[in-house]
Amino acid sequence: MRATDLQSWAEAAPKLVAVAAGRAPADLVIRGGKVVNVHSREVLDGWQVAVAAGRIAAVAEDLSHCIGEATEVIEAPGQYVIPGLCDAHMHIESGMLTPAEFARAVTPHGTTTMFTDPHEIANVMGLEGVRLMHDEALLQPVNIFTQMPSCAPSAPGLETTGYEIGPEDVAEAMTWPGIVGLGEMMNYPGVAAGDAKMLAEIAATQAAGKTVGGHYASPDLGPAFLAYVAGGPADDHEGTREADAIMRVRQGMRAMLRLGSAWYDVKAQITAVTEKGLDPRNFILCTDDCHSGTLVNDGHMNRVVRHAVECGCDPLVALQMATINTATHFGLERELGSIAPGRRADMILTSDLATLPIGRVIARGETVAVDGRVTVDFPHGDWPAHARDSVNMGADKRADDFVVTAPEGANRVKAKVIGVVENQAPTRALTAELEVRDGAVEGDAGRDVCQIALVERHRATGGVVNGFVSGFGYQGEMAVASTVAHDSHHMIVVGTSRADMAKAANRLAEVGGGVTVWRDGQELALVELPIAGLMSDAPAEEVAAKAQKMVEAMGACGCTLNNAYMQHSLLALVVIPELRISDLGLVDVTTFQTTDVFEAET
Amino acid sequence: MRATDLQSWAEAAPKLVAVAAGRAPADLVIRGGKVVNVHSREVLDGWQVAVAAGRIAAVAEDLSHCIGEATEVIEAPGQYVIPGLCDAHMHIESGMLTPAEFARAVTPHGTTTMFTDPHEIANVMGLEGVRLMHDEALLQPVNIFTQMPSCAPSAPGLETTGYEIGPEDVAEAMTWPGIVGLGEMMNYPGVAAGDAKMLAEIAATQAAGKTVGGHYASPDLGPAFLAYVAGGPADDHEGTREADAIMRVRQGMRAMLRLGSAWYDVKAQITAVTEKGLDPRNFILCTDDCHSGTLVNDGHMNRVVRHAVECGCDPLVALQMATINTATHFGLERELGSIAPGRRADMILTSDLATLPIGRVIARGETVAVDGRVTVDFPHGDWPAHARDSVNMGADKRADDFVVTAPEGANRVKAKVIGVVENQAPTRALTAELEVRDGAVEGDAGRDVCQIALVERHRATGGVVNGFVSGFGYQGEMAVASTVAHDSHHMIVVGTSRADMAKAANRLAEVGGGVTVWRDGQELALVELPIAGLMSDAPAEEVAAKAQKMVEAMGACGCTLNNAYMQHSLLALVVIPELRISDLGLVDVTTFQTTDVFEAET
Repeated sequence: MRATDLQSWAEAAPKLVAVAAGRAPADLVIRGGKVVNVHSREVLDGWQVAVAAGRIAAVAEDLSHCIGEATEVIEAPGQYVIPGLCDAHMHIESGMLTPAEFARAVTPHGTTTMFTDPHEIANVMGLEGVRLMHDEALLQPVNIFTQMPSCAPSAPGLETTGYEIGPEDVAEAMTWPGIVGLGEMMNYPGVAAGDAKMLAEIAATQAAGKTVGGHYASPDLGPAFLAYVAGGPADDHEGTREADAIMRVRQGMRAMLRLGSAWYDVKAQITAVTEKGLDPRNFILCTDDCHSGTLVNDGHMNRVVRHAVECGCDPLVALQMATINTATHFGLERELGSIAPGRRADMILTSDLATLPIGRVIARGETVAVDGRVTVDFPHGDWPAHARDSVNMGADKRADDFVVTAPEGANRVKAKVIGVVENQAPTRALTAELEVRDGAVEGDAGRDVCQIALVERHRATGGVVNGFVSGFGYQGEMAVASTVAHDSHHMIVVGTSRADMAKAANRLAEVGGGVTVWRDGQELALVELPIAGLMSDAPAEEVAAKAQKMVEAMGACGCTLNNAYMQHSLLALVVIPELRISDLGLVDVTTFQTTDVFEAET
Repeated sequence: MRATDLQSWAEAAPKLVAVAAGRAPADLVIRGGKVVNVHSREVLDGWQVAVAAGRIAAVAEDLSHCIGEATEVIEAPGQYVIPGLCDAHMHIESGMLTPAEFARAVTPHGTTTMFTDPHEIANVMGLEGVRLMHDEALLQPVNIFTQMPSCAPSAPGLETTGYEIGPEDVAEAMTWPGIVGLGEMMNYPGVAAGDAKMLAEIAATQAAGKTVGGHYASPDLGPAFLAYVAGGPADDHEGTREADAIMRVRQGMRAMLRLGSAWYDVKAQITAVTEKGLDPRNFILCTDDCHSGTLVNDGHMNRVVRHAVECGCDPLVALQMATINTATHFGLERELGSIAPGRRADMILTSDLATLPIGRVIARGETVAVDGRVTVDFPHGDWPAHARDSVNMGADKRADDFVVTAPEGANRVKAKVIGVVENQAPTRALTAELEVRDGAVEGDAGRDVCQIALVERHRATGGVVNGFVSGFGYQGEMAVASTVAHDSHHMIVVGTSRADMAKAANRLAEVGGGVTVWRDGQELALVELPIAGLMSDAPAEEVAAKAQKMVEAMGACGCTLNNAYMQHSLLALVVIPELRISDLGLVDVTTFQTTDVFEAET
């Protein structure tokens, strides 16, 4: 059932009341199982659940009076009946999938509600892109709520995005039916400084009675943090230490503990509950970012709950952190997040609360997945032609576009080099003495220095910013290009061969975006991401297989990093130190200024 | 500071952020105390609180950077700093006081937020009366939110109120700034039967995103209860047994545990938390009804929290039940109910969390009471002349108006008698053989049977319904009259002397309503309640003293009941069995039909 077809509680009330009273038959009754009640934090053995009009009609020990001839009865002996799982903060684009395909991938894992921040597409397509994500979300048989992205660009003045979000956009989005709040307010220095635009976005959200998402990515819990909190963000998922979680909860925020494909922030923080004994109601689980491979191979919110239990959390408390706590946070506790009358009938049958194998998944009263396989359709939205034609870099690139021209007459130069650090998001600002050949500065494979280029792709300016990067270990003649380039999502090309760099860039322009790996003039791997250059509307298994092949191709080019693709796609993230690249130049993220590729003479 | 003068969080944010960052001085800093954090459920010894613009600006271990020359500093060594207390469900009219005078009475007890249902005035003055209560509420220095009454009349078809509330009234009220939801949905049989009008009122409330108050006053937890829950009420304060509280929470409702002047429902139910171990987040404390004497002599929400602790509840959990749990329930958790940034600066200094003596009370950053005495004004609203002229019974009553005429030629009759039961709200349907004198049926003091009359007073119809009542123990020539006559609030007159009954009724018409006690043609006591015949705008101490004198006068007339006045004022409550009186006649509340005063011949 689509969200738009679901009656509100008020609309369904006459039917729900009649079923609960025994005057009309339920559509569905589940009986014989152990119902997990996240309000009382109990397991109610033998309780029954009646469903009508896609909502819970009744929960009690005996609902035989709700069963008629047309009632489907599910016998659930030996099974727990738990609420569908909620992901409190996530970016669909991280899975390289459209909302429909993302939903199709996670539904068999028991995720029936997602709170998504389409921050990436907002940088490419602005409010229109957010609306397209929002509209496809509302077609799905599971719940996808949208948080309006707050920060595009992420670093005003240091990059040019496809669109700039402002308070008026936020106010407009708050009127859409699927908008649940403001996406993570990443400009924490701005909020703490009283930036009028950021406070106006928060005000527009509060005026609509919706939830302001937070993102405070600093270990400083002093006045800067206090000022950020006073600005209004209601949650934060950037904590990494127990002290971070405790401080956030003490400030009246909800601490979101995250386990993504590359985020491991639950273990260190959940001790605030398991050891320090804080009231667990303000702790919430989320994924933030999951790659398609994780969804295909490991799971989604079931993986997070299972991990929380492994970390010592009581299973019922962990379930609360992925159900009712989340619903309450977003003002939806009477709409979903529990098995109680009036709520959306989103339920999972599982045989074990600790390991959480997902049997049957029910959403809005309908069985949507059984034993890992979806049983319903996940409709695609109408993506307009220009959404599939978002790589606008102007004329085809030539090898010459990637030349770093040396200062007149120089034979060697001292160049700044972005230093990738294994398993970390921050880079280091390195320098290297590089040779000049025919007026062009050359990389140095022997010292693991190759070229990087930021290719403008939103307004077809033809702009290319060139520089150097170290740490990938690339050898031979090769190039890797990606239109996933956080957060402005231009195109990042890294390579040892300017000819291959041009070919890789042109290839992405041809297919409408994605990731491509080239060696010796040949394409080794390609992940097409035709929608906004960020997402595919192919099934997750297919995308995951291509992504796997892409990573293997990077390895074949000599790369030894654990998360080579992620490192690649973060090289333009000009909010994280120390050295990055944007369409405006090389960026020194310790001073928040653009900087020349050559070291100044001393 | 009036509610209307308080900036929203968004409006105050630039100031709050500047204070928290240390760029501007706080208005107030409290330091050296032990701050109770109801989010984390901790006592944070030595933590400090900074206030600006009536809101909390920062909470941390060290806020010296927030202190400037103009900052007031309160040193609180040995004191706990706790959030102001919230009463989750109450009727101001029960205190016989206007909102301003009620607030003045409870503020020194630490109640800084009230969720009030002006059900009584709605029966007299309809939507206008609710608006007048609402408007006076918004003038106060403490928070008074209004729930729109749902059920006037309480018993459609069995009584005539001054006004009938309908769904369109509810929708209208939802647009007012101080409305927080729908008042207790008392028509639980109607909801369970799918009554369209009741469901439409609930729908109008849900459409506004507000909270639907419940009232399910039956021990039946079977299908009738399940159907009521499916209709949408979000809380219930009518539970009296542990099983009631548990069942409500399991249904996703919040269980409100009540300790009023005559309600003692905390002890039996709080064991759901203290012994059964249910998650306490869905339990909330409230008073429902407090007489002025309780407010003057015993306290208000501090009395309830203290009692919960005496019943074995952890003090921090009990405080949560009177602060953040309540705020969360009404969608106000980011507005009040805790000491956290952005929230209204409502705080109490107390030296002990178990006995809860109330020292200083701060509301919206301002000290509003110290050691039991208020320190600010509680402004009166503009009550229009007709609000003070609501006793419209037509011409003065004569003794003859109270004659129960015997059937032609009868010397003795068998009459129905309302039997008051000590310490219980239900009455018994009794019969008595009564003598006839000059065609009039007479009471029988020897068998404790006297007369009762329901005097119409909303539309000056001149109507008087006469009958008999037993149980008060009145002797001699006397009468008691009251315009507090739940829920329709006509006038109830009980007496042994028809002459005194007429004098008492006329006296109330003269003073605009209240309660009066007469003996031998003289007035023994009078409580003037000139506003709607329900409330006084005199101070609580004065009203309490008069009420005390009134109860003593009832005793002087021979009454031996524990709660004589309450029993008197409930005799027209035609929703509680077995026999009552309304303006439409004697009412059999077992069959929900009017009935003749004389027993049918058998």
